[in-house]
Parts: sequence; C-alpha cells; structure tokens
Amino acid sequence: MKILRIDTQKRTSAFEELGAYAGLGGRALTSRMVRAEVPATCHALSGDNKVVIATGTLTGTIAANSGRVSVGAKSPLTGGIKEANAGGKFSQMMAKLGIMAIVLEGKPERDATPCVIKIDASGVGFADAADLAGKGTYEACALLNAKHGEKAGIMAIGPAGENLQMAASIQFTDPENRPARAAGRGGLGAVVGSKKVKAIVLDDSGCKAEPVADKEAFKKAAKRWAEILGSHPVTSQGLPGFGTSILVNVINEAGGLPTKNFRFGRFEHAAEISGEKMVEIINARGGKAKEGCHAGCMIQCSQKYVDEKGQYITSGFEYETVWAMGANSLIKDLDDIARLDRACDDLGLDTIDMGCAIAVAMDAGIIPWGDGKAALALLEKVRTGDPLGRIIGNGTGFTAQAFGVDRAPVVKNQSLPAYDPRAVKGIGVTYATTPMGADHTAGYAVTANILKVGGSVDPLSKAGQVELSKNLQIATAAVDALGLCLFVAFAVLDTADAVQCIADMVAAKIGQPFSVDDVVAIGVNTLKDEIAFNKDAGFTVQHDQLPGFFLKEPLAPHNTTFDLTAEEMQAAKVS
Amino acid sequence: MKILRIDTQKRTSAFEELGAYAGLGGRALTSRMVRAEVPATCHALSGDNKVVIATGTLTGTIAANSGRVSVGAKSPLTGGIKEANAGGKFSQMMAKLGIMAIVLEGKPERDATPCVIKIDASGVGFADAADLAGKGTYEACALLNAKHGEKAGIMAIGPAGENLQMAASIQFTDPENRPARAAGRGGLGAVVGSKKVKAIVLDDSGCKAEPVADKEAFKKAAKRWAEILGSHPVTSQGLPGFGTSILVNVINEAGGLPTKNFRFGRFEHAAEISGEKMVEIINARGGKAKEGCHAGCMIQCSQKYVDEKGQYITSGFEYETVWAMGANSLIKDLDDIARLDRACDDLGLDTIDMGCAIAVAMDAGIIPWGDGKAALALLEKVRTGDPLGRIIGNGTGFTAQAFGVDRAPVVKNQSLPAYDPRAVKGIGVTYATTPMGADHTAGYAVTANILKVGGSVDPLSKAGQVELSKNLQIATAAVDALGLCLFVAFAVLDTADAVQCIADMVAAKIGQPFSVDDVVAIGVNTLKDEIAFNKDAGFTVQHDQLPGFFLKEPLAPHNTTFDLTAEEMQAAKVS
Repeated sequence: MKILRIDTQKRTSAFEELGAYAGLGGRALTSRMVRAEVPATCHALSGDNKVVIATGTLTGTIAANSGRVSVGAKSPLTGGIKEANAGGKFSQMMAKLGIMAIVLEGKPERDATPCVIKIDASGVGFADAADLAGKGTYEACALLNAKHGEKAGIMAIGPAGENLQMAASIQFTDPENRPARAAGRGGLGAVVGSKKVKAIVLDDSGCKAEPVADKEAFKKAAKRWAEILGSHPVTSQGLPGFGTSILVNVINEAGGLPTKNFRFGRFEHAAEISGEKMVEIINARGGKAKEGCHAGCMIQCSQKYVDEKGQYITSGFEYETVWAMGANSLIKDLDDIARLDRACDDLGLDTIDMGCAIAVAMDAGIIPWGDGKAALALLEKVRTGDPLGRIIGNGTGFTAQAFGVDRAPVVKNQSLPAYDPRAVKGIGVTYATTPMGADHTAGYAVTANILKVGGSVDPLSKAGQVELSKNLQIATAAVDALGLCLFVAFAVLDTADAVQCIADMVAAKIGQPFSVDDVVAIGVNTLKDEIAFNKDAGFTVQHDQLPGFFLKEPLAPHNTTFDLTAEEMQAAKVS
Repeated sequence: MKILRIDTQKRTSAFEELGAYAGLGGRALTSRMVRAEVPATCHALSGDNKVVIATGTLTGTIAANSGRVSVGAKSPLTGGIKEANAGGKFSQMMAKLGIMAIVLEGKPERDATPCVIKIDASGVGFADAADLAGKGTYEACALLNAKHGEKAGIMAIGPAGENLQMAASIQFTDPENRPARAAGRGGLGAVVGSKKVKAIVLDDSGCKAEPVADKEAFKKAAKRWAEILGSHPVTSQGLPGFGTSILVNVINEAGGLPTKNFRFGRFEHAAEISGEKMVEIINARGGKAKEGCHAGCMIQCSQKYVDEKGQYITSGFEYETVWAMGANSLIKDLDDIARLDRACDDLGLDTIDMGCAIAVAMDAGIIPWGDGKAALALLEKVRTGDPLGRIIGNGTGFTAQAFGVDRAPVVKNQSLPAYDPRAVKGIGVTYATTPMGADHTAGYAVTANILKVGGSVDPLSKAGQVELSKNLQIATAAVDALGLCLFVAFAVLDTADAVQCIADMVAAKIGQPFSVDDVVAIGVNTLKDEIAFNKDAGFTVQHDQLPGFFLKEPLAPHNTTFDLTAEEMQAAKVS
C-alpha cells in the first residue's frame, strides 16, 4: 500500500511509501497525518491545509461492513481537526488500487479551472473540468460515469464545495452510481473546493486488493464477524427493516426528538416522518426499502426513496436528515424532506447543518415554520452563490450570526444532531467534548441511554454519562480507523467476543499479533492526535460546552436541563 | 455619582451607589463591570450580556479633552471583552446628571418594539420608538433633537445595530447634533440592538457636575495640562491643521499604508486622499477644516466635509476611514470616501471593519476594485437587511467566510486598522495581543515607530516592539479610564511632567492623594480585567497572532514580513 500525494497547484502526483504512517488506516491515518502535516492555526482554506482521503485497515477484505472511506483536514467550519467518513464504492476501490491515502496538497489560484483527477492502474491523470463547474453532484457523476465507465467510483463536490461554503460535504457514489453517500460534516467539501478539485474518479480494473497475510484465519474470523452482525436485533432487524429512521418514533417517545429549533422534545407529527411511514411509502410506490451502501454490507440500512410516479428521489435517507429537515423545522411532509435530502446531496451540503440552519432561518423569520417548499427554495440559493445561499451554505452558526439569532444549536460552530442533550445526556457529553464539534457519531451514547444496547445508563441523570461517552469515543475512533461501518457497534457492544473477533481479523490481515488492547489503542491514539491538534489550534475547556440555552431552558416533556459542566466533562477526553 | 441600571425587558430603571465600582471611570469601569457581571461564555446577543456606558473619571471637569464616553460589553464580533469610546456631548452630560454608568441589562423578545430612553433631572423614561425603527442615525437624531430640544445629547444605533450586525457601531451626537462620533469597533451596536434600545437621550438641564474636591489645585493642574497640549506639534499643529488624515502621506511614505487588502505598503493615489487634499477641498467649498468633538477640546481634529455645493456630507472623517475606504479598496475619490463614511455613521457601522469588508468583497469579485459608487451601494444593502447587507454588516471576517476568501485581515475576528504590521511592527504586536481584537487605539506604537514621539523604535525590526506595545497598552487603558482623548498621548509621551499633571488633576478632583503610579495602576488593572475575561471566554496564546499571510508574504516596498511569534508577544500582556 502507498500514499498518493497530489500537488493541486502544479497538478503533479507522487506515490510514496507509508513510512511513519504504516499500520494506520481510516480516521487513525487522516488524523495522524493532519496532526503531523497541517499547521493547527492555518486558515482552513489556505494552501497549508491538506485533504487526506484514507481507506480503512480492513477495507478491501471480505470482512462484512468494512468499506468506509475517511476524509480528514482542518475544518473550515469548526477551526479544529475533522474526520468524516462515508460508504460508497470509493474505499474498496482505493484498497484495490493499493492506495492507503490520497492527499490533496497546495492550492491553485481562486479563479483556476477546477479539475478532475482520474486514478487507475496506469497512474494518475488530471483533466480540466470547466464543463462540470457549478454542476450538481448527480449530473456531474452521471457525466463522469458516462465518460469513465459505470464501474468507476467517484468522490465529488457540489456547488457548495466549489463556492467554499463551510457546510459543504464530499459526496461518494454508491453501488448504483448515485452520489448519495456523504462525508458530510465539518465543511470538508470546501477544502476540496479550495484546491479546485471537482472530483476524483477511481477505476480499479485489473487491480486486486493486497492479499491478507493469513487467509484461513481471516476467513474464520470474518465468518464469526458475520454471525455477530447477523444475530443482533438492531443490525439484523431494526436497521434493515426501517433504515435509521426507525429512530424517529423511538427518540420521540423518549422525549429527545428536538423540535422547532430545539424547543421541545416531541414532534406531534413524528409518525408521519417515521421509518415505518417511509417504508410504507416506498413499498406502495415501488421503491426499494433495503439497500447497502457498499459491497459486503450486511445491514442494508439504505433505501431507494421514490416519488408518486416511482421516480427516484434519494437514497441514504437517514434519521438525522429526516429529523433536521422534519421535526426541527416543523416540516411533516416526507416527500418534501426527501427532496431536501436530495438537494443537499446534489449541492454537496451536510444535511444536519442545513436542517438546523433552516430552522434558524425560520426563527429569524426568513421563511415560515414548517414550509418544506420554502426550505427547498432556500437551499437552492446555494447553487447560484446568491448571498442568501452564501449564508445558509455556511451552516447553522453562520446563519444564526447573519440574522442575529442567539438560539444557535452548535458546539465548535458545528450544529447539534438529532438527539436533544437534555433528554439524552450521554450524547450531550459527546457533543461537548469530541474534537469533531457536535457530532453524534463520535460517541453514540444513545445506545445505553435509550436503546439499552451495551448496558443501560439513565438518560436524564448525570451519572455515568462521562464514562459512557469516553468509552464510546474511543470505540468509535477505532471503528472509523478500521473502515468499519459505525452500526457494527450495536452488535459489538452486546457481544462478548466481538472486539476479539475484530482483533483477530486485523491480526490475520497484517500477519502479526493484534490484541483487543491494540484495538483500544487505535482509538485512544487517534483521539490523542485530534485533541492535540485542537489544543494547538486554540481550543480550551470553554469550547467543550453546549450553548447556554441548553443549560437554562428545561425541555418538555421531561423538563430537564443539561447540567454537566465543561469541567466535569473533561474526563470524557482521553489524556 | 450613581450607577443607573436599566432592565430593558421590563423597561424599569434603578439608581444605585457605586459600591465596589467607586473610583473607576470610563474603560476601567466598563471592563471591571463586564468582567464581574457578564458570564464570559455567554452569547453576546443573549440577555446575559450587558452594555455598560461610562463617563470618564475626569469628565465633566474643566480639564481639556476629557469628554470621552466608554461603552463596554462582551463583543459579538470578537467573542471577547470590548470597550469602545467616543466623543460627542454624551459623556459630559452624563457627568452633569451624576451618572457614572448606564447599564443596559436583560433582553426583550426579538420582535419587541424598540424604545428610546430619556434621562433628565426628573428621572428615566421609556417610550416606544416604532417611528424610528430602521431609520438612519442622522434622521433619527434629528427627530429626537426636534422632540427633546437641541440641547439634548444622544446615543443611537442605526439599522445595522437594530439588525444585530456584528460590525454595528454606537453613534453619539457631536456639539452640532450630528451623530458623527462613533464607538465603532467590536459590534457593540448589535448588543444595544439586541436589547431593543434605539437611542438614549440625555438632557442635563438644571444639573451641575459634581464639584471637584480641591478647586484651586484642579485649576492649576488643568492650566498646565492645557499648556502641555497646546505646545506639542502633533496636538497643536498636525492634528488641528489636517485632522488625523495628516497620516495618509506620512504612513504612505513609511511604506505602511495597506493597499488592496493589505497587498502593498504604498498607494499610488495617496496624495489624492491625504489630509492636505481634504483641507484644500474643504476650504475651496466652504466647509470647516477644524472642529472639536466635545466642549473643551483643544486639538480640534474634526472637520465639516462638504460637497461641491457646500452641503454637509460628514464629520469625524478620520485617517483610518479614509484609508479603509480608500487605499485598501483602491478608491481614490475623496467625495466617494466621504459618502462611505457618512453611510457608516448613518447605518451605524464601524468604518474600519466596513472598509476591510469592502476590500474582501472586491477580492471575492463581488464589486470591482476601486469602485466607490459600487461600494456605497453595497453598504446601503445593510439598511434593508438584504442578505448581502447581512454579510457585509457582519464585518470583515464574516464577509471573508461568506465568500471563502482566506485573505482575511483580522485578529480575534476584528479587522486590522490602517497600519501594515509588516512595516510598523510595534502596532502589529498591539493588534495581536490587545484583548480588544486588532485595534490601533489599544497601544498606538505608530508613535515611536514612525512619528518619533515618545522615543524611537525601528519599525522594521523586532527589537523593542513588545515592550513598546505593552507600555502603550497600559497608558491607553489609563487614558480611556479617565475620559481623556487618546490624542493627548502624543503630548504626554514627549512631556516629562505630563503624567504627574494628570495625577494632580485626579487628586484634586477626588480630594485624595493620587500618584503617577496610581495612573499606571489604572491601566494595568483594567488590562488585567480584560485579559481575565478573555481567558474565561476561551482565548489562548493561539489567538494572539496575525493571520498567516502577514507572516509569509513580504510587503513592498520594504519586503519585510511580520516575524514576531505569538509566544514572543505574550510579554506585551500585563500579568
């Protein structure tokens, strides 16, 4: 495996050995490299920043759900280090091409023509992409697949990334060549945009993934791994059955579904936007209720959401999106929400930050509460670089500043996801303390708080939340490093030999001993890199807290406030 | 003297004794009170923030140039503590009314009707000001003076403050009732706007300033004070002769006049926007080249700038404004620049942050370089709350983020003023380290660096800059606390007995011993309060540095970079 460095200014490339980065994958690799090579106080859109796109340690093997791709950089949104990961075809193709990481370096002039980078067995090519400039990811990827073949896997940015918007995502094509898989958070699409890269196209024709060192041992462990995923109710029934939107009713029932810009914990129209309702609509219209985002996925939480005529609208239609565009904005029409999701994927925008930004715009009186059509028109302003689009596209914190709204649900300027921290306090600790800015995936305490997976911790009490969040943050960082889908965690947390099984797969792959402790060490070391970067970027304990209104306003129905201090929460950070 | 606390939500008021705040004035009082009463991590536009408007320790006396008013709060622009001060009638009227500080507390609903607060000998009154909402400060103040009498002194915000824009200023009326005196920096107008206060009107009829304790001693010291100001070439000739714009040619000559968004140190059209040219135009058109901003001013650096028909355009037309709107934006028509200054005063916007925001917008291609008419049209968008106005009105850093421009000349999100730190390194130390965000007035090292006032320190060398900045930061904080105009510093720095003279005036006023050391202690303690607040707000050494391009790009004509590290500059901060 190699590292591929690309000088985006000169349009040159060079493969190099892993060197000091050997043994690292996914988020462990992106965070180590950003920590080592990007000055912490640099401007995130300057030539000093780098985009690191890494495949996971287990990616390219037969291990189920091991096809995630990690993208890391200094975030223009948070000002700290960032890793966001996605499914799609890209990561497994990187592995087959023998590329552990693609690193985008330097920066062309602001008015330079964007380019497409093509990587295949013959090497690396650059092509002007004036024809794709400003195009949505759906159209751009369709054109690229038409040109480079249906087999190609694509990473692309939309108009939001090209316009250097701080909530810009990076989109990856799924097995059906739809750019519906997003490394959504932290504005990494803007960093790619600043480097004038519209897309990276991979073609792994003629390539074979590096063989695992111990084939038999790997096969055995991978079989047990599949059994683990196939026998847990969340990964084998809940997620495949209804997608992540199965959580709408669950979190609403728990009183933690943030509604009307985090004013209430329940949404009266929750049933209308639930996973159950989504599947009912999909089945009635002839869509597809169950899909995987990459080859080898056993969980199949994705879907094909279609309109009344059976025409495709969107895929990878997640609970957090449905919540952000739905309950939090009081939009109750699932078709409207699906079109907002599609618009975000097409424009290359983070759905969570956009949903919260829309709610803030509603708070500011820019569009009416609950108006899905107006919300869509607002998002579409991002496409043209219209000033209102420039505001919205820069995310929730920026939109709140633009309109002087002090009810800005952000930590480190990144918007809070779909779980109110007053009703699910463990996730509040994660929002506050993860180096990523408010991010549920960084330490998903909803498990023990609400789902009673991996134990049980009272969601309304302070007790046990810091430890819960810390352990999950470590576990998550390891999962993200290995290229595994985060949803494996549900099964892992409830299965005694699961982490051993993961360690066995790694050991068999690398042909060296690898223990459960080594798995934990990946997580700890990754977090250490991230925390060190953020410290050098100027983050302090004061940045590890939720906005004041969560500490002051009780949330119905439980009438609880978030009552952990920043100091109390410091113990959630590895040291 | 009393403190007047105003609950802006309930529209109630209460006078209270000075208590723990006794002995403090101006910036010393605002910073102590903000430090003591405002939670450092609160949202600056929330009800937790307070606006403290304080008169100076010497204000209301016969001491020359002692009529400045300080405004303090947590800044929505920087996120740190802020004090901005202004001339005008307000401060001396506060002193006569016996009010040391007016404190605006709490916060009405977002859609509440703004109010006008009237304060006179009979007490405090509140009136709905729906008729003034959205009006420029010129029209609003004219209506208020028509209603409350020509004698009234007014503090008002413009549409920018009402719209909660982060670069909103607070305007004060001058002796001719023009709202041309600004507490400009840090967005304090937005904090006033969040409290739904459009204006405060003072009428000191029937009031007399508290008598000084030792009349004869005061008279004697004040006489010497007047001699000091009257005999220094800067305060007696340079500033009265050409206003602060005398610096255009001086700083251009020194190679430190930031041109085209800080790309060059000289502007080829400097002579066309110089103080000499301004006076020539004023004299030819029948304006007025020399004016004071408050009664008792001996320096008279203000003016009445008029159009070709002799009609008033603006006043308080400062060098920093002329530079920001001129050289930095490549605008060379002084009439255009005067109209931009007028628009800022009328809209209630900081001219420095606006000039830099305009240059950034030019960098982003929003309007053409050097186009004064387009710049004015851009500013006018702030009046209506148009999305583009929402961007510009939030200042330089925000505008850069909106358009993805990484050339953002800000420290702590406040734009750099009119002296390039690569050619005037002492002022760079002040920009980086003052708790105020980039601010020349916080420690005006241009004195020894360029003007050879108060000694001489090579502007291009690192040597001596940290100590110079530190001493000036202390002196400035003391000057700001006493209610003195900062320009007295030119004379003070070059006159052996000047600080003693100031101490003598304070001693005579309060009737207690007051030494030179006590003057210094005011400055030190004020800075300690400010630094402590910022630390609690999350500021670190990483925030005490200039943007990266100042460290990398040599500036013509001297081809120097800014080469002091954040660590080296820490010694400029009192501890």
